[in-house]
Amino acid sequence: MKAIGRHIILEMWGCQNLDSVQTAEQALREMVDALDVNLLDLHVYPFSPVGVTGMAIVSESHLVIHTWPEHGYAAVDIFTCGAPREPQAAVDVLRRHYQPERVGVMEINRGQMDLPQHELATPTRLHPQQSRGSRTPAYSA
Amino acid sequence: MKAIGRHIILEMWGCQNLDSVQTAEQALREMVDALDVNLLDLHVYPFSPVGVTGMAIVSESHLVIHTWPEHGYAAVDIFTCGAPREPQAAVDVLRRHYQPERVGVMEINRGQMDLPQHELATPTRLHPQQSRGSRTPAYSA
Repeated sequence: MKAIGRHIILEMWGCQNLDSVQTAEQALREMVDALDVNLLDLHVYPFSPVGVTGMAIVSESHLVIHTWPEHGYAAVDIFTCGAPREPQAAVDVLRRHYQPERVGVMEINRGQMDLPQHELATPTRLHPQQSRGSRTPAYSA
Repeated sequence: MKAIGRHIILEMWGCQNLDSVQTAEQALREMVDALDVNLLDLHVYPFSPVGVTGMAIVSESHLVIHTWPEHGYAAVDIFTCGAPREPQAAVDVLRRHYQPERVGVMEINRGQMDLPQHELATPTRLHPQQSRGSRTPAYSA
């Protein structure tokens, strides 16, 4: 199904370097390179007492990192519309900079289009008799 | 279950005012007010030939609007950690400014903590005999 954008949601736990403005900036710049997207703007905001937010606005949408060093946790979003590379390239950059012990990834299609009518007209549900397990009735009429 | 942040993902179709920098900026400012969060930075980027990206960095995380006027579509993310108000307040602002014909909303807990041990120890699965439909075996031993 056609969609306008891809949104990768990353949950990283057990991370290093979470309170570093430099790490966030460097990671964002390398993610931009890895995805081969066009950087328009990049800002990193340190918080008190700890934590940073890093934001890269790109022509293809945005990349954002929020860190909570007190939890060893970083939330990362990679939202791209028409990026030429697979998002995995950016995940590899994050793994290198933050060395997470655990990473959770979810991908959401953004701007998902309705199915075209001709696809809707094609029966896609399995007939009950073809369902998983192919159970045969135990009786016959 | 405890989580660090709330992430509201909005899909808005059939929208008005999608190519307006002013609308994006005004909507973001009113969302910040509606959520009672602390604005750190706000930028709106117009694209050629059409479309805008608007980004508000707040102490509590971020708000972002991407628009595709050619599809009547806007993707909005409201990511907050510790916002005092319910996200619905921000959705109301968006409805007013963009007048979408259809809105899809999904909420994701970000930084979801593991269940505490005492919760894990409590059996929460239904016993098979209490499952939906409460089917009784057709035979007994």
